[in-house]
Amino acid sequence: MSHARTTPLIQSLPASVPFVGPEVQERAGGFSFGARLGANENVFGPSPRAIEAMQAAALDVWKYGDSASHDLRSALAALHGTAMEHIVMGEGIDGLLGYLVRLLVAPGDAVVTSDGAYPTFNYHVTGFGGTLHKVPYGDDREDLPALIARAAEVDAKLVYFSNPDNPMGSWWVGRDIADALDKLPKGCLLILDEAYIEFAPEAALAPIAIDDPRVIRMRTFSKAYGMAGARIGYALAAAPLIKEFDKIRNHFGIGRIAQAGALAALNDTGWLAHVQHSVARARDGIAAIAAENGLTALPSATNFVTIDCGRDGDFARAVLAGLTARGIFARMPFVAPQDRCIRVSCGRDEDLALFAAALPGALSDARG
Amino acid sequence: MSHARTTPLIQSLPASVPFVGPEVQERAGGFSFGARLGANENVFGPSPRAIEAMQAAALDVWKYGDSASHDLRSALAALHGTAMEHIVMGEGIDGLLGYLVRLLVAPGDAVVTSDGAYPTFNYHVTGFGGTLHKVPYGDDREDLPALIARAAEVDAKLVYFSNPDNPMGSWWVGRDIADALDKLPKGCLLILDEAYIEFAPEAALAPIAIDDPRVIRMRTFSKAYGMAGARIGYALAAAPLIKEFDKIRNHFGIGRIAQAGALAALNDTGWLAHVQHSVARARDGIAAIAAENGLTALPSATNFVTIDCGRDGDFARAVLAGLTARGIFARMPFVAPQDRCIRVSCGRDEDLALFAAALPGALSDARG
Repeated sequence: MSHARTTPLIQSLPASVPFVGPEVQERAGGFSFGARLGANENVFGPSPRAIEAMQAAALDVWKYGDSASHDLRSALAALHGTAMEHIVMGEGIDGLLGYLVRLLVAPGDAVVTSDGAYPTFNYHVTGFGGTLHKVPYGDDREDLPALIARAAEVDAKLVYFSNPDNPMGSWWVGRDIADALDKLPKGCLLILDEAYIEFAPEAALAPIAIDDPRVIRMRTFSKAYGMAGARIGYALAAAPLIKEFDKIRNHFGIGRIAQAGALAALNDTGWLAHVQHSVARARDGIAAIAAENGLTALPSATNFVTIDCGRDGDFARAVLAGLTARGIFARMPFVAPQDRCIRVSCGRDEDLALFAAALPGALSDARG
Repeated sequence: MSHARTTPLIQSLPASVPFVGPEVQERAGGFSFGARLGANENVFGPSPRAIEAMQAAALDVWKYGDSASHDLRSALAALHGTAMEHIVMGEGIDGLLGYLVRLLVAPGDAVVTSDGAYPTFNYHVTGFGGTLHKVPYGDDREDLPALIARAAEVDAKLVYFSNPDNPMGSWWVGRDIADALDKLPKGCLLILDEAYIEFAPEAALAPIAIDDPRVIRMRTFSKAYGMAGARIGYALAAAPLIKEFDKIRNHFGIGRIAQAGALAALNDTGWLAHVQHSVARARDGIAAIAAENGLTALPSATNFVTIDCGRDGDFARAVLAGLTARGIFARMPFVAPQDRCIRVSCGRDEDLALFAAALPGALSDARG
């Protein structure tokens, strides 16, 4: 018997590492990516004011961050027209999804998501012993009525739904999401992952009251605010649910530099508009490159563009391999028929130029 | 039935927030602390090179941190004369303790710690449903033989032991720790929390082989390296145990700025020596202030000094309240008889001057 007796649940988990970052790929392959367009990072970066605030906060990094994130939650409450008790900060949406699953999911509990949706959510559900039920995408969108119907069938405690969606970039009209909630079974909480919402049309915002007990919304500073490496996001929900996080969260887990940067980023609405504009322009640029190569870009409400490569998953995987070999970091959906596509994050002109230069060769190689 | 059905375990957890940071105290009381000496933060701060590295990394914060923390783990492996597979990074020791408990402790599993030792560890054990068995301190030190004996009695999966100890500042000779391991029962893992080890005499370092399966060591950049607000620490253990963390950790959870700062901090051994010297000087300063007030400072192998106030817990609590009222953030042990003491973190001369000015009045008030 080894000295570390892991639990039966831990013993049941896969030992493989499901998350392979670009640096890991670079080291494994002995090369460097020329364009980093695979992780839906915001290459336009954070507000210069946020950078300044983080640089100033570096001088104070000997102090733990405020365990209540008071100033930041206060600013977020003002932004959302609500009170601080509806907001909990977390170590990115990844961290918050982990906490939420831990709050609700005991071994064997049912959870519903879309087949091919955010893998980190699935990782947490499996990691806490939940049973995942997967619903296919419909027309390259997450199928909300089908998700809710499945939740009723399996008595799910949680349903994951992202709007806009990753990896397809598609979106729902917020009004339709709000209406669909009326069918949500009792005892089932909807996670509305809005990581990309700042890139979406205004109509995508779901008119759901902050104290609606059926929904928890997730937001992040990793995407539109350009701070993926700072690890900070938040959840919005009814106060009793938010309070539950205090039972298990790492109370000093939100870094001081991250809090300072996020607060400054929130206050620079001009920079956010600049990013939104730059992303919209890059979406058009990626779509044009796709069209020049005879491919179809799907409409996107995010900071990435999903490109239909026109054949099956093996073909798209070959295109992706060709891009990797040419120094372009991109990714693709895991599940058919969405895996006929590759996914390219919005970049600066120079990033897109590298992508445009690499794509014809990658396609030609894939076509053999 | 509410829409969020928390698990029975979560329902059993206390709703109160056990961690009250200094900012929370300041807001509640409507004042600002003049000296921040309560959280064992390193007021001497991180290396200027670490600050520079963090400021430079702020420009790249749009990128997620390296999910494998390759460069940092590589530098740590060199420091410890080992290989990267023995090292896992975490969101501070707090984050790593949470992961470790989750790996090993299922509801009802036995865990042993000292009564009055690190409360965040207890928080995680309770949070995952473990049963805590507490052993009293002996002579103001954690009682390692008694901890190990209790572990055998209750078939513990985990024993927590810190060296040096918080909150008492006491320490064990490392050789004695290594020898005591031979009595550790099969199937029981010892956590050796070395958060403060860089402040301790060299003899405190336990000569334990890196691949010894009986022990996992925890280290942090929050204390000697002055980066508490960056949230970064690491664990050292046998490779198979380290690999288990990959099943559950947040793979992109370590911030990019934190990684850059930690790497630069490690490379600035001159600054570490400066901090160690400044801390030793401040320990003497705090002891002198205690003596001037008729109190006894306990010997400290950490960056704080625990001061015996000479009466019972009620008296020490009154002294602490008097210090708080005078703008000094300090803390104290929770459990008798250690709660006869207050705990004061090492500060700069100006911090200690404020403490020296506040202590006589706090004592006089407490004596009523």
